[in-house]
Amino acid sequence: MTRTEPNRSSKSDSENSGGGGGTTAMRVIVPLQGVVQGRGGLFLGSVIPCAFFYFLQFYLKRNRKNEPDSSGQRNPDSDSNSNSGSPDPTRSQSAGHLTELTSLPRSLSRILLSPRLSGGAVSVSGRAGYVIKGGDSPYYMGQKRVEEDPYDESGNPDGVIELGSAQNIKLNLEDDWVSGNPREVISDGLCISGIASYEPCHGLTELKMAVAGFMSEATKNSVSFDPSQLVLTSGAASAIEILSFCLADSGNAFLVPTPCSPGYDRDVKWRTGVDLIHVPCRSADNFNISMLVLDRAFYQAKKRGVRIRGIIISNPWNPTGTLLSRENLYALLDFARERNIHIISNEVFAGSVHEKGGEFVSMAEVVDTEENVDRERVHIIYDLSKDLSFTGLRTAAIYSFNENVLSASRKLTTLSPVSSPTQHLLISAISSPKFVQRFVKTNRERLMRVYTELVKGLKELGIECTRSSGGFFCWADMRGLMSSYSEKGEVELWNKLLNIGKINVIPGSCCHCIEPGWFRLCFSNLSERDVPVVMNRVRKVCETCKS
Amino acid sequence: MTRTEPNRSSKSDSENSGGGGGTTAMRVIVPLQGVVQGRGGLFLGSVIPCAFFYFLQFYLKRNRKNEPDSSGQRNPDSDSNSNSGSPDPTRSQSAGHLTELTSLPRSLSRILLSPRLSGGAVSVSGRAGYVIKGGDSPYYMGQKRVEEDPYDESGNPDGVIELGSAQNIKLNLEDDWVSGNPREVISDGLCISGIASYEPCHGLTELKMAVAGFMSEATKNSVSFDPSQLVLTSGAASAIEILSFCLADSGNAFLVPTPCSPGYDRDVKWRTGVDLIHVPCRSADNFNISMLVLDRAFYQAKKRGVRIRGIIISNPWNPTGTLLSRENLYALLDFARERNIHIISNEVFAGSVHEKGGEFVSMAEVVDTEENVDRERVHIIYDLSKDLSFTGLRTAAIYSFNENVLSASRKLTTLSPVSSPTQHLLISAISSPKFVQRFVKTNRERLMRVYTELVKGLKELGIECTRSSGGFFCWADMRGLMSSYSEKGEVELWNKLLNIGKINVIPGSCCHCIEPGWFRLCFSNLSERDVPVVMNRVRKVCETCKS
Repeated sequence: MTRTEPNRSSKSDSENSGGGGGTTAMRVIVPLQGVVQGRGGLFLGSVIPCAFFYFLQFYLKRNRKNEPDSSGQRNPDSDSNSNSGSPDPTRSQSAGHLTELTSLPRSLSRILLSPRLSGGAVSVSGRAGYVIKGGDSPYYMGQKRVEEDPYDESGNPDGVIELGSAQNIKLNLEDDWVSGNPREVISDGLCISGIASYEPCHGLTELKMAVAGFMSEATKNSVSFDPSQLVLTSGAASAIEILSFCLADSGNAFLVPTPCSPGYDRDVKWRTGVDLIHVPCRSADNFNISMLVLDRAFYQAKKRGVRIRGIIISNPWNPTGTLLSRENLYALLDFARERNIHIISNEVFAGSVHEKGGEFVSMAEVVDTEENVDRERVHIIYDLSKDLSFTGLRTAAIYSFNENVLSASRKLTTLSPVSSPTQHLLISAISSPKFVQRFVKTNRERLMRVYTELVKGLKELGIECTRSSGGFFCWADMRGLMSSYSEKGEVELWNKLLNIGKINVIPGSCCHCIEPGWFRLCFSNLSERDVPVVMNRVRKVCETCKS
Repeated sequence: MTRTEPNRSSKSDSENSGGGGGTTAMRVIVPLQGVVQGRGGLFLGSVIPCAFFYFLQFYLKRNRKNEPDSSGQRNPDSDSNSNSGSPDPTRSQSAGHLTELTSLPRSLSRILLSPRLSGGAVSVSGRAGYVIKGGDSPYYMGQKRVEEDPYDESGNPDGVIELGSAQNIKLNLEDDWVSGNPREVISDGLCISGIASYEPCHGLTELKMAVAGFMSEATKNSVSFDPSQLVLTSGAASAIEILSFCLADSGNAFLVPTPCSPGYDRDVKWRTGVDLIHVPCRSADNFNISMLVLDRAFYQAKKRGVRIRGIIISNPWNPTGTLLSRENLYALLDFARERNIHIISNEVFAGSVHEKGGEFVSMAEVVDTEENVDRERVHIIYDLSKDLSFTGLRTAAIYSFNENVLSASRKLTTLSPVSSPTQHLLISAISSPKFVQRFVKTNRERLMRVYTELVKGLKELGIECTRSSGGFFCWADMRGLMSSYSEKGEVELWNKLLNIGKINVIPGSCCHCIEPGWFRLCFSNLSERDVPVVMNRVRKVCETCKS
């Protein structure tokens, strides 16, 4: 079943082009440069730009005249970015009018002016419009449904069960944390004097040392992290965004093998103007990265004039839960070196490898053990909130080998700082190696138990999952339940799961999976007791689909 | 003394143009459109674009060839954004090589490849470079000196006294908070279950209600804030950045009367691609905003093809401490309506009005009491950390009357969220109206006492300050101490204050003040006992200057 869905790929392309704010101008210039430089020579190079500019002018003028003003009338003074070189005739008059105004008594000045409501339409920026529209995807719609009607075993047993959001609520080791860190420790850590002044947004040295220790424990001590290479950020979304700003300029792009985390559309694209070029992996290859396809995507982008600045990988992979082998990592490092691009290695689930004997290899380990490696192009994302199973902490880290990236990132954390209460709370919570060790171990065991239960249950219903070794997800093949093998069929099935089964899952389209019918189920939202409830609900949906 | 300094304004212009990432392409297109649309007609419209594109091609080609590669050799495969239409001859070969590679044993694959170190130079983005360079201003250099050698009455009496950073350490009401909110309240508020799951990044409803109450108290209950119009962010810097993203696209600009907060260069410009157009206010006008100059700046920008999307004001004004009158606010609202732009009203010091009888009028009050106002163009920034004098909390708020801005902002807070521990801590701290009332009152009184002391001391040394009614600052006229009336003279004096006097202050150039010789002194960093120490140090500098 490797049939591709042409609609899907064209959709993700158009989504990409809608990306940041500043890409449009680049897209006008680039093809023109191609023509001028190409085979057309002098003639085409002269005629095409001229024709292009004239048509652009006519088009803009016509559209501007027809544009309806939401206030029903056109404000002659409204700033419409028309670039007419001639000075505005109303200018000096109106300016004089305004200066006079400040010296007039308030009541008089009001009478002289037209009512304050008659200004032009109040518009927001293009990118704000894009962000607002971004809420229409199933990813956000499902979240909203869960917020409105959340499942609760005793309080709301008919509510929607959350299997979409990547959090670790039911396994959250609440008791372990509290028993391991009694309340006095927590409130002592939270000393008021620390909160009173500005502390480093990118993390106190003490906290960085604790985080480096925690990361080492999460990677089974195969690598020792250097606290000075850490920059703490308020959550993984912010860490990915900061790296995007540091590695790419507006109009540049990153390669992302898909299926990928549904959050990248927000974290990478919303504010940076950076584009994502999705590189499809297929079920026939067990969703493994093909270097051939990666290479092809790189050159196709280059041909279109898009500058690729890096590749984003995740390990354990989100959403499939696969671990990247040492071989994979070396191949990716070679690819990055040959193409002169960066690697962002998203290792937010490093401490949540649940498969027995599953070997997680951090990109940091490869870079550390190998001398002949361009370490400056390697940047790792680590999320403390995920592995500590306290997502509300909103604390993540960038671990980079590039001094420029570290320097810029440290400064940029002023714009998304970790607050002092959270920093002090974390220091008191994770400074004890003994506690951390026990915590990570218990977390892994609980994840494994629920994962095994869920996969077994789904298999009994005829739903197979890919083998997941780490992270919070199952990647389930529900192609057999779709009414038609298309994106429409997938959305229909998602709707049935949400409205008939009352479970919120993430459809593959949100992860930019090229094959319809795959769904991401975040099992860490469940306790073992919840699994039979979910199974009953999925069974109900299966019966509806078959009838 | 209203002589302008041409160097100063040209410097700030060039700083502006270095702003965001995506502005360059716009700057190429806009003048061309002007020519085509203008008086030149068919001939100029045909010849100029062609000539321009050819010269651009030659220039780019030549520069690319000469570009030195930091690794000493040019990597033929490195991505240089060349837009040659012809496919890369090495492509298929290299791609095939890579796919084969993943199936080879690790040791063999290494031998087949060139050493991993030989890739091209690893470059960061243009904007990261701009951010790194941004650290060279006195604003950041002074902060660094304070970090390295901070003053402490007993521990380090010769250290640098911090009068630069806008925090409220020595007046911070630590005891009041702790006695008003005993430890149990704080640690109860910090319930672990709240931290375990994702909670709204833009603020829990409970917290928004408490913040709205606090803001009402800060504005002396002249206005009642609606919690549903609040979006909480991790600090005021993040609030200003989110508003910039929502109101303007890359290449657009905001008007900012100067002297202004030195933080805007970071908050507005670093990541958004939005530019700031500084509108100078002068000492002769007591640094009040002139509507005439504002209007002129608007039209000059429009003539240059720059689209102005809003105006940023602060009230109480940072750095002068002036309060904007009701008349001022109406004039600004009229200006915004007539020019169809937004108003960002930075009211982060609303609760820190220390002048007896000083009347602070929030923009929210004007909008609330007046029916005929375009409320959709008004957006207020409020900083809870400043007025609570716990800057480490890093919690601020956007209060907007525009549903689109609120909707986009809520989503964008995922990228700079307030963590759950901080949210719960705040709820427990500010939910009691009695405590809030006492706290705001005590804060105002202490600010007034230190302000009065400092201004009196400076006056005795011959240094006059403008009348400040609110906020944490004195705006001191040190023109008499400069060796030359120029920006260079100002930097020299700043150096003397830092190295001889060992006090860190902010020179006017960081606030984009057009007249050299003015300095911002943040008095809230001092206790009353510290004032004589500061005076001795300033006296020492005065003597050095005069000798």
